[in-house]
Amino acid sequence: MRDRIRRLKEGLNKRGLDTFIAVQNTRYLAGTTAGKAVIVPADGEPLLICSRLELEQAKRESSVRDIRAFSGWKVPLQREERVYFLKPWQLITECLKKFGARAVGFDNLGLETLRKIRGAHDASYRELPELVLDLRKVKSRQELGWLKHSAEIAVKGMRCAAELIEAGRTELEIAAEAERTMRLAGSEGTPFDTIVASGRNSWLPHATATRKKLRGGELVVVDLGAKYNGYASDMTRTFALNPSRKQIKLMGLVRKAQQFAIGKVRDGANAHAIDRTARGTIGSAGYARFYLHGTGHGVGLDIHEPPSLAPESKDILRSDMVITVEPGLYLPRVGGARREDMLKVTLKGHKLLTHEK
Amino acid sequence: MRDRIRRLKEGLNKRGLDTFIAVQNTRYLAGTTAGKAVIVPADGEPLLICSRLELEQAKRESSVRDIRAFSGWKVPLQREERVYFLKPWQLITECLKKFGARAVGFDNLGLETLRKIRGAHDASYRELPELVLDLRKVKSRQELGWLKHSAEIAVKGMRCAAELIEAGRTELEIAAEAERTMRLAGSEGTPFDTIVASGRNSWLPHATATRKKLRGGELVVVDLGAKYNGYASDMTRTFALNPSRKQIKLMGLVRKAQQFAIGKVRDGANAHAIDRTARGTIGSAGYARFYLHGTGHGVGLDIHEPPSLAPESKDILRSDMVITVEPGLYLPRVGGARREDMLKVTLKGHKLLTHEK
Repeated sequence: MRDRIRRLKEGLNKRGLDTFIAVQNTRYLAGTTAGKAVIVPADGEPLLICSRLELEQAKRESSVRDIRAFSGWKVPLQREERVYFLKPWQLITECLKKFGARAVGFDNLGLETLRKIRGAHDASYRELPELVLDLRKVKSRQELGWLKHSAEIAVKGMRCAAELIEAGRTELEIAAEAERTMRLAGSEGTPFDTIVASGRNSWLPHATATRKKLRGGELVVVDLGAKYNGYASDMTRTFALNPSRKQIKLMGLVRKAQQFAIGKVRDGANAHAIDRTARGTIGSAGYARFYLHGTGHGVGLDIHEPPSLAPESKDILRSDMVITVEPGLYLPRVGGARREDMLKVTLKGHKLLTHEK
Repeated sequence: MRDRIRRLKEGLNKRGLDTFIAVQNTRYLAGTTAGKAVIVPADGEPLLICSRLELEQAKRESSVRDIRAFSGWKVPLQREERVYFLKPWQLITECLKKFGARAVGFDNLGLETLRKIRGAHDASYRELPELVLDLRKVKSRQELGWLKHSAEIAVKGMRCAAELIEAGRTELEIAAEAERTMRLAGSEGTPFDTIVASGRNSWLPHATATRKKLRGGELVVVDLGAKYNGYASDMTRTFALNPSRKQIKLMGLVRKAQQFAIGKVRDGANAHAIDRTARGTIGSAGYARFYLHGTGHGVGLDIHEPPSLAPESKDILRSDMVITVEPGLYLPRVGGARREDMLKVTLKGHKLLTHEK
């Protein structure tokens, strides 16, 4: 955590900023879900701002030692409890004053909140959502361990789903059992709504799981993930119930596109080139118009975070980034197929995190 | 849905606005999760903006007929597929131009996005996050049906958890089985991370579920919910394993505060008065300083939405609002206790939605 704060401070200095308000990156910077904001001065110790309601939890979890709690209304306090009877924006402003902030960056503030803060403390304010997100791209050894564990839990969930795929069962039943398996393996919840998309749902990339029953002749896309110490995992497989030749071809093509794309992953590779490889493989087979999305994304505390593996992406892959590679094809009236794995970028290639033993 | 659009248009006219950009309320206004934005002119038909990736899903689900899809990069298209090769903000701007918008309201736009839109289309822009949220407070008959069903699923999940509470089991195991039960009863997922908080976790209002085992002498707070047609439910019970006299007193006090507060719910009641009743009951027993949060909140497509039952709230309860009432007490080294039910406000009182048969 100290290293993250240090790198953020370097970023501030480089941009001529003296203070940063982090609202969307509190967990990354302070190690707790209990924070509303972290205020980081370019020169000095950071502050965590939290609601009184979460003070005890922040004290247990936060790596930022200086914690200030607010309460929107006056209430009796416990012995030794220190709380500011202020609105969050007012407490943020107090901290800016304390630091003598003149040039402030922030990741995400509502327009109205920003207007109030600016009205109460004169300084320049600059929206920099990518500043901390860029730091988050390359994972630490500890983060890599958690992501690996999270991916292993997802593999267990997928194995459970695979065993249950059969005609007559509902999408919801399969989601229920896969999620239970992941919970019992230590998952803290689902980082996104589990997808079990069969038949006409399979060609909707963002389907979820419904009361629909699986039937013969359908493709079934299962996309699921776990959370471990806050770190997400993400994995997709496509199953087939008595498939047609066209459906088999579709699944094979997606698999081939994924293999070729993964083959290009390594430190120094352009993210858009990985996408081009997948898209090219699919294009050569004449299916380009059914490839509806990018080829992958970074995974960490958020299920989707930089880098982006898509056309026009400017990201360059670096060792210890964790990404997914997930080509998919969606043919109306035939079926959808997607295959997604999570991998760690290495100097010479990659290491598969969603490894199926 | 048409009624919602109509009421939003009235709100626009009242404020002298001719167009509204809804980003956070697309599901409410268009009935689909596949939309990125809904553009509503005060005079004319609304437009749904979605990613090309979600076009097929938007077509199936959206009550807004005029759908415009964007793609950030050029790709081959399917026959009869119409896609704008634009960034989302550019497509929003195109729509504003089409409507000849001069006075625009919006619920939530990033600073940078707003700057780009403003640069490309000259008009006045006003942040009005509460405009649609206010409309959402009173539920339609259809919404009430879905919320009732969602609450019934939560009751089933809670019954499952209750049966499993015993020393030696982990918090995660209980969450796993309760969530599975809700899934099998039709839940589309969890609207928030299920809380199973035992012992020292019980006095953290925002604990989740961990690998910790339940032990004798502990309180266990279980807070869970389901989703049905997108509508959330929210319910909390506190269980005790061989409790001390003080823990029993705590649970009794929370229950009493909830009963008294629920007794004040009815059309026309001030939301802050419901909170005052709960807080007063707890205060009379000398525990005010351990009541760390508000007394309740609205529930709908979001798990927390207006009205707010808290000190200083200006909301007034109206028939067909759906709210929770959830007093809680958090005593370090003793335990936490919370009890939460979901209810529909009626003319003369309330109807309990989390009814335990």
